[in-house]
Amino acid sequence: MARIVHKYSLFILLSFLILLSYSTLANSKNINEKKPCKRFVLYYHDILFNGTNASNATSAATTNDTKLGNFKLGKLVIFDDPMTKDNHLLSPPLARAQGFYFYDMKTTYNAWFSYTLIFNSSEHKGTINIMGADMMDEETRDLSVVGGTEILAFGNWVCRNRFLTNWV
Amino acid sequence: MARIVHKYSLFILLSFLILLSYSTLANSKNINEKKPCKRFVLYYHDILFNGTNASNATSAATTNDTKLGNFKLGKLVIFDDPMTKDNHLLSPPLARAQGFYFYDMKTTYNAWFSYTLIFNSSEHKGTINIMGADMMDEETRDLSVVGGTEILAFGNWVCRNRFLTNWV
Amino acid sequence: MARIVHKYSLFILLSFLILLSYSTLANSKNINEKKPCKRFVLYYHDILFNGTNASNATSAATTNDTKLGNFKLGKLVIFDDPMTKDNHLLSPPLARAQGFYFYDMKTTYNAWFSYTLIFNSSEHKGTINIMGADMMDEETRDLSVVGGTEILAFGNWVCRNRFLTNWV
Repeated sequence: MARIVHKYSLFILLSFLILLSYSTLANSKNINEKKPCKRFVLYYHDILFNGTNASNATSAATTNDTKLGNFKLGKLVIFDDPMTKDNHLLSPPLARAQGFYFYDMKTTYNAWFSYTLIFNSSEHKGTINIMGADMMDEETRDLSVVGGTEILAFGNWVCRNRFLTNWV
Repeated sequence: MARIVHKYSLFILLSFLILLSYSTLANSKNINEKKPCKRFVLYYHDILFNGTNASNATSAATTNDTKLGNFKLGKLVIFDDPMTKDNHLLSPPLARAQGFYFYDMKTTYNAWFSYTLIFNSSEHKGTINIMGADMMDEETRDLSVVGGTEILAFGNWVCRNRFLTNWV
Repeated sequence: MARIVHKYSLFILLSFLILLSYSTLANSKNINEKKPCKRFVLYYHDILFNGTNASNATSAATTNDTKLGNFKLGKLVIFDDPMTKDNHLLSPPLARAQGFYFYDMKTTYNAWFSYTLIFNSSEHKGTINIMGADMMDEETRDLSVVGGTEILAFGNWVCRNRFLTNWV
């Protein structure tokens, strides 16, 4: 974690995707009893395009910051990022994350995400759609899984993110 | 309602968030019988940044209108807006709404929203994610609640908006 | 299909909206047994504004491509498109699709959509909200139906898209 990266902004998120069992959801009066019946742990790697790193970059800003505050409010980034099962950018991706985020606060760094996780391996096929506020000052952030397709369409998922590294 | 505001565009939405009881949804053949088991009434205040009102502004346009039509089609606004329980901007916020909207019609004003309501009080904690078309010519508009986190993750919500005030 | 269109970029998607029966979803152990209990087949017509076709155009780009790759990554298009029941742009629309898409890959054309289908006829009233990755190299693409309002709020929908025509 002590690496120094000069050339580009990079962040890595540790993302837990948890499938709550459907029957638990439907029948349980006490939602704290929910037990995951499937769990993915994925590392999300985002390298922002800076004009010269096209070979490495996985995302690009398509709008500039507005002048409201000093925390990039209004900057909208579109990404196609690899998700790996460990904290190494070059590990074989288990999934891709395609979507966008933007910064949305004038008093601190804070982002809002909407994206699709695309699984296309022999083990897992299908997509999961995720959206929600990413309150960067909180240690962990829960985003909603709002839908899915193919085998991942069913069930009730939760997505929990945690920053590992963030160079802005 | 007869105030005149010269300096910035402002709109206030009255937003009803209704939690339909889950069991009603699952068992009822007649969806008109659904009864809310919880209801929030919230006022959404949006003050658009105009270059000089940084201290008051709660949102900023990150793209300009395109030239297709005269109704701002293409203007995309990112917001972090307070939600209060009455129609006063300075009342203590019950929640924040973070997300974006854009104008999308060439023949009239019409918008499309996607945002997260963030509750972080002793009474309510969690988020609710909302998206949908906001047909500004209709008196009320229903948006979908597409997901939630923490205690608000479960149940079936509906979000109904009504314009109170709108200066463009 | 052999028409040549010089003046504007146009694409037509064939969109299947399938309502899975709720009870099937809730009870079935085998999700492959799911049977649609309602099905819409809709054609989506998108004509991008090029500066001179304002009378025909149904969408406009509100951001430009970034320079990351040669496949328009970063271009964000806002649309208000008619959906017809056959492959003719001028057929009476059964619904409108309002929302946005953007291109998100540096190595091929690939898009991400989020939009609302608005039904407002004597036969069908209500909205359906859809989002997901549109992997343009695949023959068919499933997007998630993440919510709906009025009569379309209930049930479990799937949206499957197929390109009919695409001039970029």
